[in-house]
Amino acid sequence: MLTVALPKGGLLKDSIQLFQAIGLDFSEFLNPANRQLEILDSSGRAHGLLVRNYDVPVYVEYGQAHLGVIGYDVLREKQPKVAHLVDLGFGQCRMSVAVKATSPYRSALDLPPHCRVASKFVRCAHDYFQSLDLPVDIVPLYGSVELGPITGMSEAIVDLVATGRTLQENNLIEIDRLFESTARLIAHPLSYRLNQDGVQDIVEQLRTHTSQVVAGKAVAEAAIKTVVETPASA
Amino acid sequence: MLTVALPKGGLLKDSIQLFQAIGLDFSEFLNPANRQLEILDSSGRAHGLLVRNYDVPVYVEYGQAHLGVIGYDVLREKQPKVAHLVDLGFGQCRMSVAVKATSPYRSALDLPPHCRVASKFVRCAHDYFQSLDLPVDIVPLYGSVELGPITGMSEAIVDLVATGRTLQENNLIEIDRLFESTARLIAHPLSYRLNQDGVQDIVEQLRTHTSQVVAGKAVAEAAIKTVVETPASA
Repeated sequence: MLTVALPKGGLLKDSIQLFQAIGLDFSEFLNPANRQLEILDSSGRAHGLLVRNYDVPVYVEYGQAHLGVIGYDVLREKQPKVAHLVDLGFGQCRMSVAVKATSPYRSALDLPPHCRVASKFVRCAHDYFQSLDLPVDIVPLYGSVELGPITGMSEAIVDLVATGRTLQENNLIEIDRLFESTARLIAHPLSYRLNQDGVQDIVEQLRTHTSQVVAGKAVAEAAIKTVVETPASA
Repeated sequence: MLTVALPKGGLLKDSIQLFQAIGLDFSEFLNPANRQLEILDSSGRAHGLLVRNYDVPVYVEYGQAHLGVIGYDVLREKQPKVAHLVDLGFGQCRMSVAVKATSPYRSALDLPPHCRVASKFVRCAHDYFQSLDLPVDIVPLYGSVELGPITGMSEAIVDLVATGRTLQENNLIEIDRLFESTARLIAHPLSYRLNQDGVQDIVEQLRTHTSQVVAGKAVAEAAIKTVVETPASA
C-alpha cells in the first residue's frame, strides 16, 4: 500500500489539502485529539505517517514512505537521496542572512572575515559564504538563532524568513538572500521508477492538481491587477 | 558579569532551584508570561540565558556563557569543548537500546549484522555498536524515534529512557543500556581557569550545595530503609 510521509508544523495543513484534492484523506492528523502517528486514509488506499519536518526525507530515503512533502530548505541542507518531483508552491519562505539593525553591515560581503554566523542550516550557510570567498565561523544552533547577534555571540545569522516578524521583533534586518524555498513533493527513487503501488499515477495527479492551482492563482492575480489598473471612472 | 546558560525543557526547574540555593534567582524563566530569553537575576549579579537543550554547550563552548547546565547525554553525543565540573544528580535517565516486545532480540548482540538502528543520538549509537563489533546502519531521526520499529524502518532504536512509559505505550522493550545520564554543570574552560567574573567561587558554592543535597538524600534513604526493616512490633 502507498505510504506518504507528512511533516508536522507549518506545511501540514496545505499538505493534507493537496492529498484531499486527489481523494486521499489524512485530515485526521489535524484533529487535536488524534495521538496516532500512522493512519490509514479514509478511502483505505494509502497510509499516512506524521513525522518531524527533518524526518520526512529520512522516511522517504530509507523507502519506508513512497512519497513525502518537505520544504526545499530541508532538501538543500540535508541533501537526502530522494527524487525531487513537484514544486508544490505553498510554504513560501526564503533563506536569508540577517544582522542587527544597528550594525554597519548592509550586505553579506560587508561582514568581517572570520566573523561568526549562527545558523540551524550549517551546510547552507557554509556553502553560501564559501561561494562568496568569505571565510566565516559557523556556530551551529538548534533554536532561537536570533539570540546569536542579540547576545553578541555572532555577527550574523542565516535563517528561514517567512513574514519577517521574528527578525523585526529582535531588531534584526535581512541583508542578503541565499535562496527561496517552497514545499516539494519527493519520492523514494526506486519505488518511483518501479511504479510501486501505483506511485507514478498519484504523482501525476498531484502534478496536474498543482499546475491547475498555480494557473488559477495566476488568473486571479491578473484579474486583481486589471481591476487595480483600471480607473474607477472608466 | 557572570552569564549562565539554562536549558529549556525537563531540566529547567531543577536548574533554577540549584542557582536559587546559592542566591541567584532566574525563576522569571518559569513564569509562563515571560517571553524574554535573556534576563538579569534579581540580585543583579548574573545574566541568565534560556536556550534549547542542545544549544547550552554551544553558548558555553563559544564563551557566550561562563556556566551551563546540560544532560550528560548531550555531552556524550556532541562532545563540545567545555569543562565538565559537577554531576548535579537530577535529570536521571539512561541511554538504552530498545526493540519491539514481539521481536526475538533480548540483547544488542542478538541483533542481525547490518540491521537498522534509528536514533537521535547518532554518535552514541555508532560508538556503542562499534564497541560490540556489530556493524549496523544508523538511521538519523529528529523526533518520535519509536516510530522506527513500529513502521518497520528499523529493527531497534537507541534513545533516552526516563520512566519507560513511552516505550511501554509503543510495545517496545529495553534490551541494553549504553550509559546512565544526569544533569551536569559545565564551564567555558578559559573563563574557569582565569576565574572570570568570580566563576570559580560560584562553582564551589554549587559543588558544596550539590554534595549536601546528595548527602541529605542518602541520610533520608537510610532512614526509610531502617523504618522499613524494623518490624512494627519491635
